[in-house]
Amino acid sequence: MLEKKIIEVRKRVSQWKKDGLSIGLVPTMGALHEGHLSLIKKSVETCDKTIVSIFVNPIQFGPSEDLEKYPKTIDADLELCKNAGVDLVFSPSPSEMYGEGHILSNDFLTYVVPPYFYTDKLCAKSRIGHFDGVCTVVMKLFNIVQPDYAVFGQKDAQQLIVIKKMVKDLDIPIEIISCPIVRDKNGLALSSRNQYLSEDGKKYSLALNKILVNIKACYKKGITDTKSLVETALVFLNNHHELEYLEFVDKNTLENKTVADGDTLVLIAVRVDNVRLIDNCFII
Amino acid sequence: MLEKKIIEVRKRVSQWKKDGLSIGLVPTMGALHEGHLSLIKKSVETCDKTIVSIFVNPIQFGPSEDLEKYPKTIDADLELCKNAGVDLVFSPSPSEMYGEGHILSNDFLTYVVPPYFYTDKLCAKSRIGHFDGVCTVVMKLFNIVQPDYAVFGQKDAQQLIVIKKMVKDLDIPIEIISCPIVRDKNGLALSSRNQYLSEDGKKYSLALNKILVNIKACYKKGITDTKSLVETALVFLNNHHELEYLEFVDKNTLENKTVADGDTLVLIAVRVDNVRLIDNCFII
Repeated sequence: MLEKKIIEVRKRVSQWKKDGLSIGLVPTMGALHEGHLSLIKKSVETCDKTIVSIFVNPIQFGPSEDLEKYPKTIDADLELCKNAGVDLVFSPSPSEMYGEGHILSNDFLTYVVPPYFYTDKLCAKSRIGHFDGVCTVVMKLFNIVQPDYAVFGQKDAQQLIVIKKMVKDLDIPIEIISCPIVRDKNGLALSSRNQYLSEDGKKYSLALNKILVNIKACYKKGITDTKSLVETALVFLNNHHELEYLEFVDKNTLENKTVADGDTLVLIAVRVDNVRLIDNCFII
Repeated sequence: MLEKKIIEVRKRVSQWKKDGLSIGLVPTMGALHEGHLSLIKKSVETCDKTIVSIFVNPIQFGPSEDLEKYPKTIDADLELCKNAGVDLVFSPSPSEMYGEGHILSNDFLTYVVPPYFYTDKLCAKSRIGHFDGVCTVVMKLFNIVQPDYAVFGQKDAQQLIVIKKMVKDLDIPIEIISCPIVRDKNGLALSSRNQYLSEDGKKYSLALNKILVNIKACYKKGITDTKSLVETALVFLNNHHELEYLEFVDKNTLENKTVADGDTLVLIAVRVDNVRLIDNCFII
């Protein structure tokens, strides 16, 4: 079930391919929750074999980010994967992925770099180089697993768009499947980082979804000017919230919208008591 | 024999893979000569099926380079490929590779970027972004063809090292085969750009190989200080030559050598009457 070595994964995949089986990949950083399970379920339904990768990828974290404290729950993750019908969990060490004494800077490592137009905004503004790290590791995982399908969550909307663009630009022979955001009963989008939240933080974190729901309602009533729509958010925010962005973009190209329309994706990032949370919705 | 569409290549390859056949790719920019034919021969010997790509890749040319005038000899190329036992020639248009109204800057296109340590020297110094363009198109070709082997010439030594590094860093499941430089009877390394040379230019161009041969001889006699070895070149150069670089590096890592040893690769680039020529040799 668990493989830590690239060569072992290749062997397993090679046999499956010889047997004519289709393969789905669900790349994760572990700390699995119902959101991940929805991706796994989609892959298990779609493909003959499902591989889940669990790898906290150092090159997508900035120096001041939460790489060290990122939650690790491998035993629970394996149990969840087993129960969900996963065929193989690939959980490599950083040195397995990047070599011994792994030198991760772009001085010594080949990177896959998404277009600046997609990464000069939103999450990339506060997370410099983040999507270079994401695209590079996803490309590596794609090349190791060579899946027919790869499943990503709509929760990380910018990541999903950047990866779809990478697949198109580099002619990667893999179909990207996206799955909708999974929310808890209060509407909070599930995230491994939610466990950093205090009880009060959990309460304040509900603002993100409330803002998005309200914007959808306003749009339905005919408000399309995005400046006015941004203003509707203010009532949900207090001094426990630090709004990083609330933006309206084209759902395929990430182009900014001054007037919302049917192709508009609304994205929000807020720090709640210093825990960074993101959420998004299609306006219709 | 000739396919211009990605989708058609994929169909052909898919059938070959189903039939359990191994596939070799020889990426070229056309204007095929004996150097290319040696690569093709190697692939035909090694693999069940050989695909030659012919694509003058715009994104690896700088604005002041010879993209427009780069020699195009597709009919002759096809004939050579046919006689050499090639199974398929993939010759796409720029728009097939990069989309209609193809916007090629890294504002709008995902790039594969080799490490700076490999591209802050040698050819990359005068050809800014060249290897980003090379790696990106090679990655695209790899993803389109999905070969088991890809064959490159030692002639473009820095390119070969950069591509091997890309394959390692991104876990690309392809074996890179390199082939030695092919020279004309006078010792000039074959290149599609040699046809830009005047009769006098052809004479002056022999300096590159003479310099390399002499350096090998000096090394054999015990001279290992690379500064002294560089000086031995001067006698072969006159005012028709513009020496761009003559460098001694590690053959795997491109690290500069001040003292030559058995792992040393010697690389030279010279403009001969404004035609840019490159050559290289292993010191032993």
